[in-house]
Amino acid sequence: MTQYVDLNSDLGEGFGAYKMGMDEDILKLVTSANVACGWHAGDPGLMNQTVGLVKKEGVALGAHPSYPDLLGFGRRKMDLSYQEMKDYVAYQVGALDAFARAHDLALQHIKLHGAFYNQAMADPDLAKVLMEACLKIWPDIYFLALSGSPFARAGQAMGVKVAQEVFADRAYREDGRLVSRKEPGALIEDEDLAISRTLRMVKEGRVKAITGQDIDIVADSICVHGDNPQALNFVRKIAQALEEEGVVLRAFGQTK
Amino acid sequence: MTQYVDLNSDLGEGFGAYKMGMDEDILKLVTSANVACGWHAGDPGLMNQTVGLVKKEGVALGAHPSYPDLLGFGRRKMDLSYQEMKDYVAYQVGALDAFARAHDLALQHIKLHGAFYNQAMADPDLAKVLMEACLKIWPDIYFLALSGSPFARAGQAMGVKVAQEVFADRAYREDGRLVSRKEPGALIEDEDLAISRTLRMVKEGRVKAITGQDIDIVADSICVHGDNPQALNFVRKIAQALEEEGVVLRAFGQTK
Amino acid sequence: MTQYVDLNSDLGEGFGAYKMGMDEDILKLVTSANVACGWHAGDPGLMNQTVGLVKKEGVALGAHPSYPDLLGFGRRKMDLSYQEMKDYVAYQVGALDAFARAHDLALQHIKLHGAFYNQAMADPDLAKVLMEACLKIWPDIYFLALSGSPFARAGQAMGVKVAQEVFADRAYREDGRLVSRKEPGALIEDEDLAISRTLRMVKEGRVKAITGQDIDIVADSICVHGDNPQALNFVRKIAQALEEEGVVLRAFGQTK
Amino acid sequence: MTQYVDLNSDLGEGFGAYKMGMDEDILKLVTSANVACGWHAGDPGLMNQTVGLVKKEGVALGAHPSYPDLLGFGRRKMDLSYQEMKDYVAYQVGALDAFARAHDLALQHIKLHGAFYNQAMADPDLAKVLMEACLKIWPDIYFLALSGSPFARAGQAMGVKVAQEVFADRAYREDGRLVSRKEPGALIEDEDLAISRTLRMVKEGRVKAITGQDIDIVADSICVHGDNPQALNFVRKIAQALEEEGVVLRAFGQTK
Repeated sequence: MTQYVDLNSDLGEGFGAYKMGMDEDILKLVTSANVACGWHAGDPGLMNQTVGLVKKEGVALGAHPSYPDLLGFGRRKMDLSYQEMKDYVAYQVGALDAFARAHDLALQHIKLHGAFYNQAMADPDLAKVLMEACLKIWPDIYFLALSGSPFARAGQAMGVKVAQEVFADRAYREDGRLVSRKEPGALIEDEDLAISRTLRMVKEGRVKAITGQDIDIVADSICVHGDNPQALNFVRKIAQALEEEGVVLRAFGQTK
Repeated sequence: MTQYVDLNSDLGEGFGAYKMGMDEDILKLVTSANVACGWHAGDPGLMNQTVGLVKKEGVALGAHPSYPDLLGFGRRKMDLSYQEMKDYVAYQVGALDAFARAHDLALQHIKLHGAFYNQAMADPDLAKVLMEACLKIWPDIYFLALSGSPFARAGQAMGVKVAQEVFADRAYREDGRLVSRKEPGALIEDEDLAISRTLRMVKEGRVKAITGQDIDIVADSICVHGDNPQALNFVRKIAQALEEEGVVLRAFGQTK
Repeated sequence: MTQYVDLNSDLGEGFGAYKMGMDEDILKLVTSANVACGWHAGDPGLMNQTVGLVKKEGVALGAHPSYPDLLGFGRRKMDLSYQEMKDYVAYQVGALDAFARAHDLALQHIKLHGAFYNQAMADPDLAKVLMEACLKIWPDIYFLALSGSPFARAGQAMGVKVAQEVFADRAYREDGRLVSRKEPGALIEDEDLAISRTLRMVKEGRVKAITGQDIDIVADSICVHGDNPQALNFVRKIAQALEEEGVVLRAFGQTK
Repeated sequence: MTQYVDLNSDLGEGFGAYKMGMDEDILKLVTSANVACGWHAGDPGLMNQTVGLVKKEGVALGAHPSYPDLLGFGRRKMDLSYQEMKDYVAYQVGALDAFARAHDLALQHIKLHGAFYNQAMADPDLAKVLMEACLKIWPDIYFLALSGSPFARAGQAMGVKVAQEVFADRAYREDGRLVSRKEPGALIEDEDLAISRTLRMVKEGRVKAITGQDIDIVADSICVHGDNPQALNFVRKIAQALEEEGVVLRAFGQTK
């Protein structure tokens, strides 16, 4: 049986006169794009251009909403109410949806950004609130979530379309959470090791935690980055290794 | 034959901790609501609440996009490119559309705000660009425009749904444009006169310009305000006068 | 010996077209003003006008910096680094200082706003960092702090000018902290009780905690509000009660 | 007699996670720095760092205030009142002044940014209003202005310290204004020609206008850019050519 996996990357993260990321290059490698919606990055003009590029490359389109924190690039935790978070997501995803429709595209998924992602992945009640609110507006949408997270499990319990993502270059704890970047060993710096771990996550659904213990993991998608030439090269290597193993790169929403 | 007219008002123009307007009261009087989209006023939470109120009162929903100028309430002219203006409108209307869908409502119309309105009403090329861009995303949408303006005429020439609005308390020039607020006589301060002029605009399609000359005018909608109790009272008087004359208040998009 | 106390209030908390607070009225009652600096409220034009009013009424001027959160009125905790907090305070207080100098005034004090206040009052390390950074720029400035808080104690240990404030209408815990608004009994709703408690805090340096236990408290200043006519009236009553007891209202920085 | 000229460049024009310009490199070449104040670019952390770099390199410090337009990098004309413009400048320069004082530096000058610069240079009434407002706060400050502009002449008529700047790579009209970038020939693309023109502006106070006519020009300062390695290299060539001609590079405020 053919195995499939998605590669997802954040895109459209410039703002006004500011550039960020090698969007045209990474779009030739990934199958799903998380497009910034103006609150941590992105602006209407860039959103329009980015959606146009996404369409041109035949990549699946996702919204990448954030806390309202352009100054901190959405990386700083904010103490928001569930109601605020629901409304902020609807606003941003709605804005991106306008550009999707302008380009005759439908949104495949929503992936929360930065501190918002971290907070939501760990809070099943928040997950439920956000997913219900979004599904009322976008009934067919996927949520791209950390593999094995309370968010992902809450979505599955609700019967919601959840795609679970893994990280090629990050160490995992035994409970399936990522080792914090503040701790030693959080990053897998050896590229070959990162690639072999990724292959195993995709093909066997297993990864060795930082303790040495093997754990289960679901890899519907692999989160990759296109910030610089080195990052792009790493993505090329992952894609090549997957293809050599017979794994087909395909957007998670493309089930047929 | 029954005559119809719409009453439209700006709504949801608070921001965060700031209140503006007597939205619950004016919603009991008008038939169309122009809801702020966060760029001159409004925020996601308020947009959600306002759309909820609009639905509860059975009023038709419109988007009220602006230049990016919260500090100046969208009243200051900005020198933007057509591309920027198109993208800014799509972003804002898309954001409001998410809340519309969350409440099972469809957008009836778009009315530009403040300096953006003034600029677009006078520029038929800009009108064309904006209408084409919006219709690509919202094929059934109306544009609420100044009666007789180049914007309105451009829309009619394109076969676009345009609703033309008049102002009860403003003087008109012979060419159909409003007398600038900076000029004497711009405001019709006598309420009875304002009401009789409004009735005539609706029933006869005529109004006396500031020069004394009678001119043609189309009154699909009357723009009213709910900022304070006095303004509300004036709206009540207009509504009553129209009803006494047999004119039925009805949203312009409600053609059946 | 004459006893003195300061009354402080937040001012200039509108933004653009939005009004908030009865600034002209409360300025006739208080002795110190905390002026918003544009990040939770306030804008350059309002800051200039407010500093002008403060000068006209002979009230002492303070800066009221906030987290970068206009949308949340600075009331939402944000996870910022000490360096970010230092820089944000310098930026905002510097901006207000320009208007102070334009009106030939010097800044008396800095009082943090909202969530930033709550966070800093409880963190003596942050207190130290902020005070050192500000004193490098404004060597003579006071910090207005919660009475008995780690912030106040850190300042005193450093030999910094700290003015300690009490709240007329709030219950205290035995450790001197305010009872959270989320808990029952947090607000002293009986005005006479609130006034008698305030008099005792000023005159005796004692207050009854919510447990019934008497605790020590230092009342260099009383925090009051001018949001509405009822709040203003309460301030008038406090001021009158203090004067009847021979307590002189005077800005804390006015030591001569 | 020794001839002096200043080289000025815009600095600190990143924002949050966004980088812009090769600030450390250009600071080794210029004598005056125009530091962004957060409204078109710059944020408190970057302002603090940039002022630190400016001090380390012994460069003179200036503020670079803008219209409130981060999204448009301050390049879009806005229709603001003189009062708004005054207050916006005071706010931004005040904020930068805090970081100057934190680093024991005094502000040498103010140079307006982008669309604000273009508007003010052509409007002597606005020039007067802005200079009066700033001098009330910063009595010793210089204004860096387009050579021969109505702004510069207004300042001289008022007895204000004005430094006049020229552009190495731009063509001039006979009336001393820059040829618009939209017109052919606006840019002097031949580096050798640009340098020889610059030398002549500095040494003789003359330049050939686009019509072929020689005109008078005052070169207190030369505006240069550090956006990319090529731009930096051009600045190095200008600096070397000036030094070879015996012209000493010195900040315009350093009159002793």
